[in-house]
Amino acid sequence: MTDRSTATPLTDEQSWEVLGLQKIGRLATAVAGDVEIFPVNYAATKRRIFVRTAPGSKLAEIAVNGRIAFEVDEIGTDLAYSVVLKGTAEILEHDDDITDAEATGLLTYLDTHKPVWLRITPTEVSGRRFTR
Amino acid sequence: MTDRSTATPLTDEQSWEVLGLQKIGRLATAVAGDVEIFPVNYAATKRRIFVRTAPGSKLAEIAVNGRIAFEVDEIGTDLAYSVVLKGTAEILEHDDDITDAEATGLLTYLDTHKPVWLRITPTEVSGRRFTR
Repeated sequence: MTDRSTATPLTDEQSWEVLGLQKIGRLATAVAGDVEIFPVNYAATKRRIFVRTAPGSKLAEIAVNGRIAFEVDEIGTDLAYSVVLKGTAEILEHDDDITDAEATGLLTYLDTHKPVWLRITPTEVSGRRFTR
Repeated sequence: MTDRSTATPLTDEQSWEVLGLQKIGRLATAVAGDVEIFPVNYAATKRRIFVRTAPGSKLAEIAVNGRIAFEVDEIGTDLAYSVVLKGTAEILEHDDDITDAEATGLLTYLDTHKPVWLRITPTEVSGRRFTR
């Protein structure tokens, strides 16, 4: 511990900057009190988060129509950032939306020919910057 | 997409090996349908996860007496690991338990003089190895 260690809130702008720089986030859901957490590849654009997953995946099943939390961090030796976003996730079904999603160029670690796209619309974004 | 990309389940032993190698995990909780996710420093020992936090922190308040999910990952260019653990978290109150926790040598990014120790006892551990 040092007296110099501090946590500073980020502005919305700064939080989206962090979200724009990273590629891997973790999406958490709760269904009937059962908490799940998934590491996901994502893209952030126009203040939305896009996640690509396989049809029928557990993520696609349970992330939808529920409140989710999504977290991204960047941990350095003397400086760290964490952004947590809360909101809802939906599966994209309209061609226009899917075109928007595909325009992000997002690929996943395990890629699939006909992905399902999730779009997260945030209701709350909070970021913190840690220094020590 | 390539046909070579695969996800292979890890054995319990392999999952704990991954947990033992990393330092940062994400803890997710759900209270009344509201999902929270926290990046945390942790130590894994004797098949338990120890997390150190500040007294009165949001994490200390809500992670306790509830089911939690905890995720650790390591993402490389051609190989990635992810381990998700489900279980319960408790605040350590007995001296013996706190001594065990302190023996992990765990420090946090923002350190504090009189930390609260959480111990996660898993009911389920599942790990996956991704190659492409």
